[in-house]
Amino acid sequence: MVSLKVRRLPVEIGELRVVLNRADAEKVGISPHDRVRIVRADGSQVVALASVSSSEDVSPPGQVGVFADVVKKLPLNEGEVVSVEVVPTPQSAGLVRKKVLEGKLTPQEVSLLIKDVYEGVLSDVELAAFVTALQLHGADMDEVEALTRSMAEVGTMLDFGDTLTVDKHSVGGVPGNSKDALLIVPIVAAAGLVIPKTSTRAIMSPAGTVDTMEVLAPVDLKPEEIVELSKKVGGVIAWAASANLSPVDGILIEKVEYPLSLDPECLIYASIMSKKLAAGVKRMVLDIPVGPEAKVESLKDARRMGRNFVELGERLNILTQVAISYGGQPIGRYVGPALEAKEALEILMSKGKGSRSIIEKSLTLAGILLEMGGAAPVGYGERMAREILESGRAYEKMREIIEAQGGDPDVKPEDLPIGEHKAVLTAKMSGYVVAVSNRAIVRIARAAGAPRDKGAGVRIYAKRGDRVEAGEAVIEIFAESESKLQAAVEVAKSMEPIRVEGMVLEVFRDRTIGKEIVE
Amino acid sequence: MVSLKVRRLPVEIGELRVVLNRADAEKVGISPHDRVRIVRADGSQVVALASVSSSEDVSPPGQVGVFADVVKKLPLNEGEVVSVEVVPTPQSAGLVRKKVLEGKLTPQEVSLLIKDVYEGVLSDVELAAFVTALQLHGADMDEVEALTRSMAEVGTMLDFGDTLTVDKHSVGGVPGNSKDALLIVPIVAAAGLVIPKTSTRAIMSPAGTVDTMEVLAPVDLKPEEIVELSKKVGGVIAWAASANLSPVDGILIEKVEYPLSLDPECLIYASIMSKKLAAGVKRMVLDIPVGPEAKVESLKDARRMGRNFVELGERLNILTQVAISYGGQPIGRYVGPALEAKEALEILMSKGKGSRSIIEKSLTLAGILLEMGGAAPVGYGERMAREILESGRAYEKMREIIEAQGGDPDVKPEDLPIGEHKAVLTAKMSGYVVAVSNRAIVRIARAAGAPRDKGAGVRIYAKRGDRVEAGEAVIEIFAESESKLQAAVEVAKSMEPIRVEGMVLEVFRDRTIGKEIVE
Repeated sequence: MVSLKVRRLPVEIGELRVVLNRADAEKVGISPHDRVRIVRADGSQVVALASVSSSEDVSPPGQVGVFADVVKKLPLNEGEVVSVEVVPTPQSAGLVRKKVLEGKLTPQEVSLLIKDVYEGVLSDVELAAFVTALQLHGADMDEVEALTRSMAEVGTMLDFGDTLTVDKHSVGGVPGNSKDALLIVPIVAAAGLVIPKTSTRAIMSPAGTVDTMEVLAPVDLKPEEIVELSKKVGGVIAWAASANLSPVDGILIEKVEYPLSLDPECLIYASIMSKKLAAGVKRMVLDIPVGPEAKVESLKDARRMGRNFVELGERLNILTQVAISYGGQPIGRYVGPALEAKEALEILMSKGKGSRSIIEKSLTLAGILLEMGGAAPVGYGERMAREILESGRAYEKMREIIEAQGGDPDVKPEDLPIGEHKAVLTAKMSGYVVAVSNRAIVRIARAAGAPRDKGAGVRIYAKRGDRVEAGEAVIEIFAESESKLQAAVEVAKSMEPIRVEGMVLEVFRDRTIGKEIVE
Repeated sequence: MVSLKVRRLPVEIGELRVVLNRADAEKVGISPHDRVRIVRADGSQVVALASVSSSEDVSPPGQVGVFADVVKKLPLNEGEVVSVEVVPTPQSAGLVRKKVLEGKLTPQEVSLLIKDVYEGVLSDVELAAFVTALQLHGADMDEVEALTRSMAEVGTMLDFGDTLTVDKHSVGGVPGNSKDALLIVPIVAAAGLVIPKTSTRAIMSPAGTVDTMEVLAPVDLKPEEIVELSKKVGGVIAWAASANLSPVDGILIEKVEYPLSLDPECLIYASIMSKKLAAGVKRMVLDIPVGPEAKVESLKDARRMGRNFVELGERLNILTQVAISYGGQPIGRYVGPALEAKEALEILMSKGKGSRSIIEKSLTLAGILLEMGGAAPVGYGERMAREILESGRAYEKMREIIEAQGGDPDVKPEDLPIGEHKAVLTAKMSGYVVAVSNRAIVRIARAAGAPRDKGAGVRIYAKRGDRVEAGEAVIEIFAESESKLQAAVEVAKSMEPIRVEGMVLEVFRDRTIGKEIVE
């Protein structure tokens, strides 16, 4: 144990960490990355990771530098004397090592580990090793169940009592898909069911469900607001993080999954189902889009994942149906928060006019929920969903939801803030569209500023199977600044967002290529 | 691109990192953990990782907080205006992901990645994912060779020209082993060979070779000093890090391997052989101690690793012989830097009196080097090594080496700073020692303060096969403070450093246990 003066470091770093001079650290046997306990005169304390610095300038001996993250947990005054002592490595750090070396943890071990992730006990390096081990070893269903339950239980758990709640969720990965909730939620709520839809913001995509809903109304609802408003108007579309639903999911995404571009399959299950468990959902439909450049590329994988979702749902007492959908090209004709909100609003107001891909998909999924919730007889769900949309009742319900969440129910599609900097890309040749690249559309929309710039995104004029003439518009890019528009245009030019082919598939000019045909 | 005022953060964090306010970050599309380029008015620049803070207090808008690590690379003044723009993820970060997902990299990819580790391009989270992937996927011999070469080449490479250099290295893992170099180096040098022994400090053990040598003489030699002194007196025992030999090894150990307690086998190869390659070693003997609670527990594993060392040596043009040694209990009778230095010095001064385990092992390994270096005919190396030790020539050479490195050649064993706080543990029963636990001895010695407290450590009175009487001393603990002595005693009591058994192996009092014998 050593007594040191507190030196407040005016910055947050996302970890509970303090900095010691090497001389002080060696005096008490503290190695870099060891944990130390900081104890104030009144006995209050906090455990933090130790950085050790050899420089007397940036880390003077006799002082302990504390980052703002530590001060948030334990108020420490500049110059105050605290005692600092090394503490044993927490059990959860040993469990990270066990998962790496042995591949498997017990449910109790998973719980303990997730609790420590939530409380900031583990370092970013430990979290990275854990997620990498989940990627490489995977997790069996007992571990996935424990991950899911503990990720839900460390946060807020909504309680809907006896109310039968339903929900729809997508594993994602296809641009344009964020708007289906804006059709499904009002349809299902209009039929009298309760659908407390909670979701996350986009991580790698140009628009998450809440990014898009936020164009129409605030999405940062408190836990009690989600319950009350869902019961009152039948549904909400809310940001899971603002209600502290499954908070560990966000920690792992921000600290490890996003920086490493890793998305272990077991965390896809736990991420989605922990949010549903925390939101008090009792029955749900899980959409798995499949196709080239989607998150799930093969039907075989989609079926395997679907079976796992159903089994996990059984274990959690959430009745789950899986819908495998076509995800080989963007859903609908617009990608980006404001563009997708506009597309959804136009479909609702026009009582069902617009892109068939988004309308048919939404009606099918809504229909499944109507049947699961007992609002429609089996086999009649989709028909009822269509009637609700085409009668205008879905639009009326959406107005109620927007108003309940604090938005303007009279909002019109033309009011929405679409980026004013635009560029049109045209077809180089006449022919048929054989592919619209999910990956290219995502990269173009993100380069244009989506999801942060709400008005940024892409309009898709031509989809698979459409005939286009040379010079005709195929996509249009929207951005909020000229520089981002140009960046997006550059991306578009370097990729092939829309592939057009004529009936002749290849033309050879070089005699060495395609020899048999030419000679 | 956004223009921001520099705010110098007076602390080092071990990463090239800056902190932005969320508003500024979102304006230019910077996500947490993205890389940004900081450009000064004169065009000089640095790339750093971006942290994003929502708090206006700790990270005011309009400012970019730069840690001292960044200022070291690019001098930035408080209040200076710089432009900040997001840059694409470096190729090496994609290679980390490739190693995780696909398991294998090309030699060119390994080189690029190691270069970026050295230059601080990769985040700690990326390094953790890389090491975890090396632990789980392993690496094939092409990758190991590339790791080894690139780890050596990013640092200093010593050039001994035509001089035939030899060396001995151990994979480690057995307490008490750090002192064998203090016998082998002077024996080999006394025979006229050149042995530039470079090594690292202890990571998990109570004493590394340089921790122990440092008790007798400084070990932080410059590259040219290692070459000159080795040529002049025949050998040195120097700290690899001070000469910048294989610096990436230390980075990975400090940032990932030590905090996670991971030690991937492929990095054992690359760590040792990159240091030998950088040190200009041409022929070497590699010691693999095997036994319960050693780093390598089975003879089968030792043979496999030995074959890999030989193959890697061939690829690097370092002629390598492997010696598999007994590592089932500590080597010699003392553990800890000063205690081991004392034990070695006593053996040298007494011309070969002392613990047989350390003397026989050192003579065998020295003998192999004498044969490999052509100083002794095949089959006569160990005999020559013994003659050099018993004639006092080894001690004379050690005095020269100590003096050359800047120590006192007249140093006496009784001058060495052994911890004055002592506790003796005695046998609870009479019988034979059936085990001395490596793990327990390591934990006790480290709890007592080793390797940082040079005088801390353990004396082992009874080794395997020895007869002890109840009440007789079995180990003695040395520490530099009473509190560390007590901590070490607590560890000793909670473990079983010395297991004593009588001829009767079990006595049953409970009738339900060992039923067949009792009834």
